[in-house]
Amino acid sequence: MSAPHLDVEQVEAANTAFYEAMERGDFETVSSLWLVPADLGVDEEYHDPADTGVISCVHPGWPVLTGRGEVLRSYALIMANTDYIQFFLTDVHVSVTGDTAVVTCTENILSGGPAPEGDEELGPLVGQLVVATNVFRRTGQGWKLWSHHASPVLTESEGDDGDAGDDGDGAPA
Amino acid sequence: MSAPHLDVEQVEAANTAFYEAMERGDFETVSSLWLVPADLGVDEEYHDPADTGVISCVHPGWPVLTGRGEVLRSYALIMANTDYIQFFLTDVHVSVTGDTAVVTCTENILSGGPAPEGDEELGPLVGQLVVATNVFRRTGQGWKLWSHHASPVLTESEGDDGDAGDDGDGAPA
Repeated sequence: MSAPHLDVEQVEAANTAFYEAMERGDFETVSSLWLVPADLGVDEEYHDPADTGVISCVHPGWPVLTGRGEVLRSYALIMANTDYIQFFLTDVHVSVTGDTAVVTCTENILSGGPAPEGDEELGPLVGQLVVATNVFRRTGQGWKLWSHHASPVLTESEGDDGDAGDDGDGAPA
Repeated sequence: MSAPHLDVEQVEAANTAFYEAMERGDFETVSSLWLVPADLGVDEEYHDPADTGVISCVHPGWPVLTGRGEVLRSYALIMANTDYIQFFLTDVHVSVTGDTAVVTCTENILSGGPAPEGDEELGPLVGQLVVATNVFRRTGQGWKLWSHHASPVLTESEGDDGDAGDDGDGAPA
């Protein structure tokens, strides 16, 4: 086991590399940053079919995607529909224990789709406030993503703070 | 290390216990199901202050909460504003590796706040479709929560499927 400080640096670097690959639309690198079942020691014969999803991913507002097939197809789809995307990461927290790390961060996203008519250089830019929880696992090839869960931060109207649980839109658990 | 099948069963039981405690409004049990820093072997002197959040929690539409103080206060707030809540869990997937487990599930939530005027038995019931990623860690006292991230599933209008990445509301990463 390596030193905790070094682990935190390496995990943060892997997290940054993931978002930079998204910015470049670099599908190969994004794909390589996700675990393959062998990294988790998954024995396909032993596990129930329901438990072999292994990796999981939730994009903002999406249902859960499980397994490399579903997860990687979603990135291919997103990249095909995104001409420009930039992530300004803030509030990055890393918690490492043994061979697993949990990273939380705020993704301040600026993105644009293809031009609507094909005659403009870029579609309209959209800003989004998203928070993410990324779980990494240590492998022989560095830290790899086991789970990514991102969700929109729904801002409340001003003067409505301190009472988030009673209006049905900031639901519990 | 125990048998993988047994691990999956124990993790699923811990996940169920967490939601049942929420349904009962049982703050003590919810609190006991979250890791304490000692469970993760956190050495307060060694870690940077920024990295000692350890546990993290995202309620649907909320920003990230880190550390037992913030996380447990949020549950106290939610319970104080929720008279009735029931979780119908579906699509429960468990992925265990060593001493860490990632659980994904769909929380079909039915909840109600306090009666608005105090003269009704229950406020209006609200249904919500939420997905969650729960990370558990094995401890001497069973599997405990390291991270919980829940987010609303934003349903698209019918006939708009297969094109989720281009309209700015199903954002990437």
